[in-house]
Amino acid sequence: MGEVNIAVVGATGAVGREMVKVLEERNFPVANLVLLASQKSSGEFLKFNGKKIEVSELTKNSFKNIDFALFSAGSSISKKYATHAVTAGAVVIDNSSAFRMDNQVPLVVPEVNPQDAFKHNGIIANPNCSTIQLVVALKPVYDKAGIKRIIVSTYQSVSGTGKKAIDELMEQTKAILNKKKIKREVYPHQIAFNILPQIDEFENNAFTREEMKMIHETKKIMHDDDIKITATAARVPVLYGHSESVYLETEKIMDIKSLKQIYLKMPGIKLVDDIHNAKYPLAIMSEIYDEVMIGRLRKDLAVKNGINMWIVANNLRKGAALNAVQIAELLLGSQEK
Amino acid sequence: MGEVNIAVVGATGAVGREMVKVLEERNFPVANLVLLASQKSSGEFLKFNGKKIEVSELTKNSFKNIDFALFSAGSSISKKYATHAVTAGAVVIDNSSAFRMDNQVPLVVPEVNPQDAFKHNGIIANPNCSTIQLVVALKPVYDKAGIKRIIVSTYQSVSGTGKKAIDELMEQTKAILNKKKIKREVYPHQIAFNILPQIDEFENNAFTREEMKMIHETKKIMHDDDIKITATAARVPVLYGHSESVYLETEKIMDIKSLKQIYLKMPGIKLVDDIHNAKYPLAIMSEIYDEVMIGRLRKDLAVKNGINMWIVANNLRKGAALNAVQIAELLLGSQEK
Repeated sequence: MGEVNIAVVGATGAVGREMVKVLEERNFPVANLVLLASQKSSGEFLKFNGKKIEVSELTKNSFKNIDFALFSAGSSISKKYATHAVTAGAVVIDNSSAFRMDNQVPLVVPEVNPQDAFKHNGIIANPNCSTIQLVVALKPVYDKAGIKRIIVSTYQSVSGTGKKAIDELMEQTKAILNKKKIKREVYPHQIAFNILPQIDEFENNAFTREEMKMIHETKKIMHDDDIKITATAARVPVLYGHSESVYLETEKIMDIKSLKQIYLKMPGIKLVDDIHNAKYPLAIMSEIYDEVMIGRLRKDLAVKNGINMWIVANNLRKGAALNAVQIAELLLGSQEK
Repeated sequence: MGEVNIAVVGATGAVGREMVKVLEERNFPVANLVLLASQKSSGEFLKFNGKKIEVSELTKNSFKNIDFALFSAGSSISKKYATHAVTAGAVVIDNSSAFRMDNQVPLVVPEVNPQDAFKHNGIIANPNCSTIQLVVALKPVYDKAGIKRIIVSTYQSVSGTGKKAIDELMEQTKAILNKKKIKREVYPHQIAFNILPQIDEFENNAFTREEMKMIHETKKIMHDDDIKITATAARVPVLYGHSESVYLETEKIMDIKSLKQIYLKMPGIKLVDDIHNAKYPLAIMSEIYDEVMIGRLRKDLAVKNGINMWIVANNLRKGAALNAVQIAELLLGSQEK
């Protein structure tokens, strides 16, 4: 594999830092790593393969000789700078929601729709965290038995909101333990020892944007607009790892034993389902494992095509940074053939 | 209303203490209040209407002249002592799971099936906390449009497990903030900053007992064995208040506006659904409000009979102590007529 030049846009953010880590951990063939951020964060240093790399200010001219530009600095930055990267000859892998539903932009999870990655026009979108772990778990069921309906309720960690939200949870928790007044800045309500049934803004249909992302993105990635999917997204006082309670209704009856056998063989999936030893996916396990963890697999007792499962993944890694790097690996692998 | 003699069995537990509080707050017509507990807890004092009442040791002979015996000391205590209370002439209102599925024992939520309370043979069962708040929210939908299916995922607070679990969450949280090792005794895994998709033991069908309680009890209370219901119960790092993400499929189409109008008029329900001002039910609100709080009401975009909602209630009060006292009020009210 030839070495390539990589730019990380939003390098000092929670996901940007994970991108740099993931590139190192996976021995990604990096020739030059260019770290980009806002003027405020430029001048900081991040470690990569034992070297300190200075963060530069993002400008239109930051993308000379860049092969892959990994964006994770929010939608408005992606909308403003992605075309400059493409014009300079880079492939943009964008972690924001800016282009996800754009017909010209593939939305890719390498375990699910790798073929789509090759149909890009310069930009490939990385799906939302809560969608990625869902579709990785759904794909083998879909291929084997078809999926008619999906009903999902999420338990999402604060790191999905960013570093400030992690600080807010920790500070509020400390305040409550010390019987002091809590401060709120990031979330509209206390997040410590509480559950917020709101992630992102509300749309006119009374769903949140986070819920609508799961609905729209799942259909696009699965190439199936007929799947009936509904979602409820909730924020929980957890630092890392999103959990999802997922109910599926399949076209054909699928037995749990065969599904377990399939999951055991799937790359990117870790089956954690030994209930009599209290083994099932836990949010805190996502700090150790990069795989999408699946457990609590069981048949609905009332509907013969119904399956319940519990899905956990690290929202900053498989839900963001790792998936983006895997997309770059996919394209690179193909170039090598 | 004539005054009656009340015994609270398990008076020093988390629910028992709430029972005493609720009796006082609601000006329940108490002549004598007898507080009963294990030998270990006897000799403690609890306050009731400004007086200190000593806790006595529970024995077979504790129920002389008692009109209502409110039990909340676990299944085995209920099984051992309920008949002694009945023989002594008391009506037992039992908060344990001992008799809930017994055909001879009504399972009652006063807002839902008050008529059943009067069919008792000495014992009335109080449903499980997660069932009570669910059926209170479902009843008006059921009456208006019929319910075919229910898919529920819960976010249950640690107080449902008892006082030791509250301590465990607080101690683990402190340990993590201070970068110390956590201790586990009550739960099989760390509960601080984590989500556990297990409540109670697993049954052979891979559902937990908590999940099966919701399934069986809902059908019994609603007098409808044909409702297709499936449940996933998860424990969250919250102190008080259970939250539930509920998906319903109705027989007839039900519009959200009419449903809101119905909820606004229902006693025992507080509609909290003003999303554009970030108002929806929160677990921490259950420390203030006794009502079952309902919000995030919206139509499924894919299935025309589908409705999503978010339900929160205080698991120690409406989910246990308050419901038990309301059952006693119901019986007393009728005796007065």
